[in-house]
This record gives sequence, C-alpha cells and structure tokens, in this order.
Amino acid sequence: MPHIALNSAEPGIRGLLRYRPETGRLLSELTEVLLRGPGTLTRGERELIAAYVSWLNGCRYCSSSHSACAAAQLPGGMAVVEQVRAGPSAAPVSAKLEALLQIASAVVISGHAVAAEHVTRARAAGATDREIHDTVLIAATFCMFNRYVDGLATIAPDDPAVYAAGAQRLIAHGYLPPPADHQR
Amino acid sequence: MPHIALNSAEPGIRGLLRYRPETGRLLSELTEVLLRGPGTLTRGERELIAAYVSWLNGCRYCSSSHSACAAAQLPGGMAVVEQVRAGPSAAPVSAKLEALLQIASAVVISGHAVAAEHVTRARAAGATDREIHDTVLIAATFCMFNRYVDGLATIAPDDPAVYAAGAQRLIAHGYLPPPADHQR
Repeated sequence: MPHIALNSAEPGIRGLLRYRPETGRLLSELTEVLLRGPGTLTRGERELIAAYVSWLNGCRYCSSSHSACAAAQLPGGMAVVEQVRAGPSAAPVSAKLEALLQIASAVVISGHAVAAEHVTRARAAGATDREIHDTVLIAATFCMFNRYVDGLATIAPDDPAVYAAGAQRLIAHGYLPPPADHQR
Repeated sequence: MPHIALNSAEPGIRGLLRYRPETGRLLSELTEVLLRGPGTLTRGERELIAAYVSWLNGCRYCSSSHSACAAAQLPGGMAVVEQVRAGPSAAPVSAKLEALLQIASAVVISGHAVAAEHVTRARAAGATDREIHDTVLIAATFCMFNRYVDGLATIAPDDPAVYAAGAQRLIAHGYLPPPADHQR
C-alpha cells in the first residue's frame, strides 16, 4: 500500500504523475526527450539503460516496465535484457553500448564513481560526448524515478503481461499524457 | 575538468543546462516548481532538504549552492544548515522538518529505505501527504542532480562568495532561464 493516499489506483510512477500533475507533466516530458527524442542511441538502447539502472536499484515497477520496452525494441528481445542484468561485459551488445552500460552502473553508485577511464573506454568504442552525456543523465534520472516510486511504496503489478501491454502503448504513443488529459 | 567538452565555462549544473537545452529547460522548470512553487513548506525548508541530500551525496557544487539558498531564507542561517549536516535530530528545526529530513536521508540510500515508521512519524509531527510526497520527490530529484553534476565531473568553484551571490540571484529571479535565453 502506498505511504500516502493517492487519487487513483494507478500503479508505480503513473499514480504519482497523476497525483501531482505540475511535476508529472515535466517528468513525462523529460522521459520523452531522453528515451524517445532525437538522438543517435536507438530507443531500444536507451530503454535498456533505463531498465538496467532500475534493475540495479531494485525498483520492480520501473525495471519491469522499461525491460519490457527495451525487449520490444531491441534485436534479441528479453534474452538480451536478462544477459545485461547478469553483467554487461558478457552480454551480446555492441562494445559502445557495453561501455555506456558500465557508465550507467557507476552512476547508480555515485556520480563520483564515474571515472575518466569509463569515459575513455566509451569514447574508444565510438561513443560521442552527447551519447556519454545522455547516458549519465538517463541513469541519473532513473535513480530519481526509482527512489520516487519506491520511496512512496507504490504498487507494482506481478503479471509480466501488464508490463508488456504497457510497453506496446508507450512504443505507440510515447510518454507524454494525451493532450486532453494532462493528468495522464 | 569535465568528462565531456561543454559549450561554456559555466560551473556545475549551469554548464549542463546550457549544453543540452531540451533537457535543461525541463530540469529548470522542475526545480522551480519543487523549490519555489506553491506549497506549505517554506522555500527555506525546501532548499534545506535539497542542501542536505546534496551534502549526503557528497556533491560539492549542489551542496554549496543550495546550502547558500537555504541559509539566506531560513531563520538561523548557515548555522542551522551546518547543524542539520551533523544530524537533523539535534538541529534547531521543527519536529515536522526533522522528520521530513529523516525521510530525505532514507531516500538517499534507496527508495526501499523509506519505512512506514518514517512516514508515521512525519504525519504525527503534522506533515501532510503532499509535504511527504514533495519531500520524497525533492530528495529523489537531488539524487539525480548530484549524479548528473558529479558523473560528468563538472567544475565546482571553491569560493563561498560565489555561491552566496548565486543564492541572491536565485532568490530574486528563480530557477527558470530568462525568456530571451532558453539556454540560461
């Protein structure tokens, strides 16, 4: 049961976005820009970074949701997501994505844990400054969402089919609330 | 030296907001709503939560900046900020603010570290659901900013006068970029 009385039965972040629409709108826009806006990392790669960070933080709602989004948009599907969870260095991803996932896992510990060597390695594998920037910001943003969702003890459904259906909706329509429903 | 080539010499978050204006605008708006928008926690109390979280995360830029903002808006000034750093339970703050600072310090560890007892205690001291919500979101948001600022190794000035002057500017004008300069 959530720590506070929400104004809907929506699970995870969805109930929080609806509870406080002034911040909900901004958080939805931020997610849309970072995970789906113009950029050279694919949407599947960006969802994988969000999913991996959420998994490292033990946030069941965000991890399930973004793992489903990553699986639906990455060649290799959920098997790749699970291999990344077991350790990016042995997962079947590009050297660039592997180096970016290592940066993301450092961000989970602390900003200070991101070493010059992490960045040198990502750059040597072909990552641009903008990709390194966005990886740090995506990882930091999910360190926020994970704490927000679990810090208020929101509900996370058990059924994987719920997250798979949510992923299809997000892939089709994005993270912004419909124009007529700014409370999403 | 920052890990990536920024497009200005601005320190801390300011250089990052300018580097990536699409996310910078949203992050500025989020900060404005959370720390200065309508709410029953004073601006000084909200800045103190941001300052304490940033200090626990060891983020020198954010901690110095928001400590200066808190000190300028709280009765008791910087002495209170320093007493909170040494432990909220012995600091000269209200029972409600002390309980909210304890929630914020749990969020720094993990969302899962916020226990029902933290919330019960805050509510018994007079905190509303909205104040508990905003405390969790402010703390989570600064867990993001701290990781973003330090994960890209941005510069933090040494001189306390820089932060004190910045605080006066933020108190007078807020966190939104001027209309003519969406890159701030």
